Amino acid sequence: MLCSSDNNEIFLGIDGGGSKCKAIVMSGDNQILGTGIAGPANPLHGYEQAINSIVESAKLSLKDAGIDESELGNIVAGVGLAGVNLPVLFEKISKWKHPFKTMYLATDLLIACIGAHDGKDGAVMITGTGSCGFSFVDGHPYIVGAHGFPHGDKGSGAWFGLQAAKQALLSLDGLIPPSLINDKVLALLDVKDDVELVEVIAGKPAAFYARMANLVFDSAEEGDELALDIVREGAGYISHVAKQLLKQNPPNIALIGGLTSRIKPWLDKDIQEQLIEPIHPPEIGSVIFARQQVALL
Amino acid sequence: MLCSSDNNEIFLGIDGGGSKCKAIVMSGDNQILGTGIAGPANPLHGYEQAINSIVESAKLSLKDAGIDESELGNIVAGVGLAGVNLPVLFEKISKWKHPFKTMYLATDLLIACIGAHDGKDGAVMITGTGSCGFSFVDGHPYIVGAHGFPHGDKGSGAWFGLQAAKQALLSLDGLIPPSLINDKVLALLDVKDDVELVEVIAGKPAAFYARMANLVFDSAEEGDELALDIVREGAGYISHVAKQLLKQNPPNIALIGGLTSRIKPWLDKDIQEQLIEPIHPPEIGSVIFARQQVALL
Repeated sequence: MLCSSDNNEIFLGIDGGGSKCKAIVMSGDNQILGTGIAGPANPLHGYEQAINSIVESAKLSLKDAGIDESELGNIVAGVGLAGVNLPVLFEKISKWKHPFKTMYLATDLLIACIGAHDGKDGAVMITGTGSCGFSFVDGHPYIVGAHGFPHGDKGSGAWFGLQAAKQALLSLDGLIPPSLINDKVLALLDVKDDVELVEVIAGKPAAFYARMANLVFDSAEEGDELALDIVREGAGYISHVAKQLLKQNPPNIALIGGLTSRIKPWLDKDIQEQLIEPIHPPEIGSVIFARQQVALL
Repeated sequence: MLCSSDNNEIFLGIDGGGSKCKAIVMSGDNQILGTGIAGPANPLHGYEQAINSIVESAKLSLKDAGIDESELGNIVAGVGLAGVNLPVLFEKISKWKHPFKTMYLATDLLIACIGAHDGKDGAVMITGTGSCGFSFVDGHPYIVGAHGFPHGDKGSGAWFGLQAAKQALLSLDGLIPPSLINDKVLALLDVKDDVELVEVIAGKPAAFYARMANLVFDSAEEGDELALDIVREGAGYISHVAKQLLKQNPPNIALIGGLTSRIKPWLDKDIQEQLIEPIHPPEIGSVIFARQQVALL
């Protein structure tokens, strides 16, 4: 719970993902003192980049709060990071000689769940660039998905974008009928044919594909059959993930991430009806997590 | 055609792909004098690596032929490369200060087709790490696919491996029933669960996924329903590509690449019956291509 600290101690909360790293400074009486945003912080895509982004976002949030950055060594930080569900990366970041007074490390999934449910048990489905489901009930974390791109993360922004690219290429090759997706993909990427499209796409990461997710939903909402099939498949997967999570009997379940507003209307009706609004964003989840850990001492 | 050169001049043929680069030295009377193999040579994945592999394989083939490598500057080379179907890469390689007397550059698709049909018009489908279709009829090249991984290359080794990884992860998450694929994926990659699997897979290139293609065919041949669905979908795509190519009226059509023996029995019967055995491998296609270009002078 977002309880006040006994001594009004300030805490730093970090939410580090594949595209950006958010930091927040909160007072003991739950006031947001400052925030900061820096670059990517998923150590799977680069350890140095990740720790640089964590430190930079932290310093920016202190500056925003009017606190000298030399205070970093006196502040307890809760750090939630993508990628550290892999044990080897959790260990590597844990051994980092961080600049904080103390660092409490958790997965981005746990801090998102803690944030969404104000520190109480619950479940979250995250659909942004990636996708996954997570529940925390009676001390037990449970993960569905969070496997990454391109082999996993079905129903994510990157997955929708990849389907758009695949279908556009098949169609431009004459192997399937044209769809509204084609023109939208070519227009978004400012290319004129499949050769230019392949040139622009080659070797691109998940975040690039995620840019194409909205056009799939747009096409579906305009009645395009191919886009409807993609949206139904992706949303069907997220509904399936929700059902797996609900078997853990979480008190509440929430949907978060950049794709939330687009995908929510396509989920199974019974899932939509059970979703609650998340209470806090993940970076506040990191603050709550750190306070919980300190309280355990 | 593999006609003799008037002056018995030797030629070098290069077939550079994503995993290796093959070189061959042929005499004017069509004897193979030497061969060499070096590393990856797809400039899309690294220009320096590609040109290094071309030169290294060429030198090895000269050495194998008992010819001093200082002769490189006196030899005409036909160079077929993956990736140069992208105009920007074709231009970049064309401007390369190569060590040969003359270099004739072509796509890996064209030299594969020229090799398979001994320099005559025809069509080829290539299913190795990647997949594509190509025909050359009456001076007109026509490409289907060749889009790359993970957005294209359906029916390729990488595509089959990616399906195996996706299905194994969905199954290990409890979202779909277990399949024979699961145990085979875990055994091949020497991992015990989905966390280890994701750790091993993260960020891997097409060639890594292609290692998992055979286990999908193995599972299908053992009657696994999920594997059968994947094999039917992948082979169905290749059959579809063949039908597109046949619309160009090529005199002959051949199937080549590392996955040929596995996928051929799953193609549509009418396609299987039309396939001819390729006459020469792609690196000899490069020699034929270079001779054709010289003859045009």
